[in-house]
Amino acid sequence: MVAGVVGLGLMGGSLALELKELDFVKKVVGYDKNEKHKKEALELKLIEEAVDLDTIQKCDLIILAIPVEGIIETLKSFKNIKSDSTIIDLGSTKEKIVKSVPEKIRKNFVAAHPMTGTEKFGPKAAFKGLYKDKIVVVCDIEKSGEHQKNVAIRLFESIGMQIVYMEAAEHDRHAAYISHLPHAISYALANSVLGQEDPKSILILAAGGFKDMSRLAKSSPKMWSDIFKQNRENLLDSIDSFKKELKIAENLLKEENWEELRKWMEKATTLHDIL
Amino acid sequence: MVAGVVGLGLMGGSLALELKELDFVKKVVGYDKNEKHKKEALELKLIEEAVDLDTIQKCDLIILAIPVEGIIETLKSFKNIKSDSTIIDLGSTKEKIVKSVPEKIRKNFVAAHPMTGTEKFGPKAAFKGLYKDKIVVVCDIEKSGEHQKNVAIRLFESIGMQIVYMEAAEHDRHAAYISHLPHAISYALANSVLGQEDPKSILILAAGGFKDMSRLAKSSPKMWSDIFKQNRENLLDSIDSFKKELKIAENLLKEENWEELRKWMEKATTLHDIL
Repeated sequence: MVAGVVGLGLMGGSLALELKELDFVKKVVGYDKNEKHKKEALELKLIEEAVDLDTIQKCDLIILAIPVEGIIETLKSFKNIKSDSTIIDLGSTKEKIVKSVPEKIRKNFVAAHPMTGTEKFGPKAAFKGLYKDKIVVVCDIEKSGEHQKNVAIRLFESIGMQIVYMEAAEHDRHAAYISHLPHAISYALANSVLGQEDPKSILILAAGGFKDMSRLAKSSPKMWSDIFKQNRENLLDSIDSFKKELKIAENLLKEENWEELRKWMEKATTLHDIL
Repeated sequence: MVAGVVGLGLMGGSLALELKELDFVKKVVGYDKNEKHKKEALELKLIEEAVDLDTIQKCDLIILAIPVEGIIETLKSFKNIKSDSTIIDLGSTKEKIVKSVPEKIRKNFVAAHPMTGTEKFGPKAAFKGLYKDKIVVVCDIEKSGEHQKNVAIRLFESIGMQIVYMEAAEHDRHAAYISHLPHAISYALANSVLGQEDPKSILILAAGGFKDMSRLAKSSPKMWSDIFKQNRENLLDSIDSFKKELKIAENLLKEENWEELRKWMEKATTLHDIL
């Protein structure tokens, strides 16, 4: 089959590299609305040919590796896809996407969210191995066609991913805690240091802990404000629950209740028995 | 010279391993009030001999790698140290320590905070290389004797550290932002996930970002409640400034002001131009 990747950044570019190696994929073409990225992806040999969206529509396998708002728009623009084509999106939120897929192509569509990434973006950030041994959440799979389901499973398993099935709404609630809240926290931490009198003197002391906590604050503001928009209600809920926990710590500090503070910390350490 | 390390966990054990290799250190002995740790440190060959606190007092170089409260107590108990001995502490907060050093041994004392560590603790966590290419903050050095200053510089440079000089009070304000606040946030994030209906289903989705953000929540509650106690006021200030930033994001989300939210994120990304 011919695979067409829309969006040639970290996620799409890295997947294109994997697609090229699969025995059931004959050719990998790609599209990016950013002309510079399209050229870079070709130069970096992420794709074999740069094409337009009309050509993408004729592919047997279409990957949408673009921001959520773009996925929704692109799905609506697909009027000429093959009857047996498989369209897989890699968006970070799922409920708004699955609700917006045009009925005519619903069977062609598989909603997926690979739980992987780095803080880097663009074609140059793409690398082989991004997906290996990672989780991919596949949502509302009963609404996809049998053939499309099988193509998606074959694809994800071939590149070494473990599939977890979930309802889109549940995925979005969970993703708020596991991914969107950590991003909001990381941006807030970075801004709170930048807001101090002499951030440079503070940052000279930065070791592994702070670097880990602030790494997500390197992520693309364009992409992440879009994700926050899509998952606004769940993110607000998660911020609320996080704030309550921080308030507990703050109150115990104010009360100088060291015994209870230690217990609160001990509860937190049990996370790693599950993780 | 003979070096004596008090506290044979991650920090002390790792430093003992480095001390053994230095040409100006003849022998490395160690003490830990935890008998099991003392035995383990000897078995792991972190130290050459396990001794009591009386023997530690007779060492030429004494390293205090224990919690801050223990450092303060131990310094007060030192009645028989050599007149030219050098005592270096590795505590995470500095102001309360420098204020509590008995005047009689003030010249012998060098206040240091190596900006390194892992979330692991105990003798088994010790490893060679923990200090290499890391920053060490040395505080109020003008109050240390000339010989003691030189011993400390020689030690830290020999193990590959870069020294930054700072006042104790300034160190504590900065450390609140760079280390103590990130720990409070990480514990709060862990507890907010654990407080949800089905933490296991959430955590199955955890990828690098969440793992990085929650790693610090593995840290020793005993040690960290002690650090929070020592730096309570600065930590409360930093929590306050962090909460204000998070509130900005929350308000922009509520107002659906995506343009301003993106700008707020963009400001945060500039942190990495300094870091």
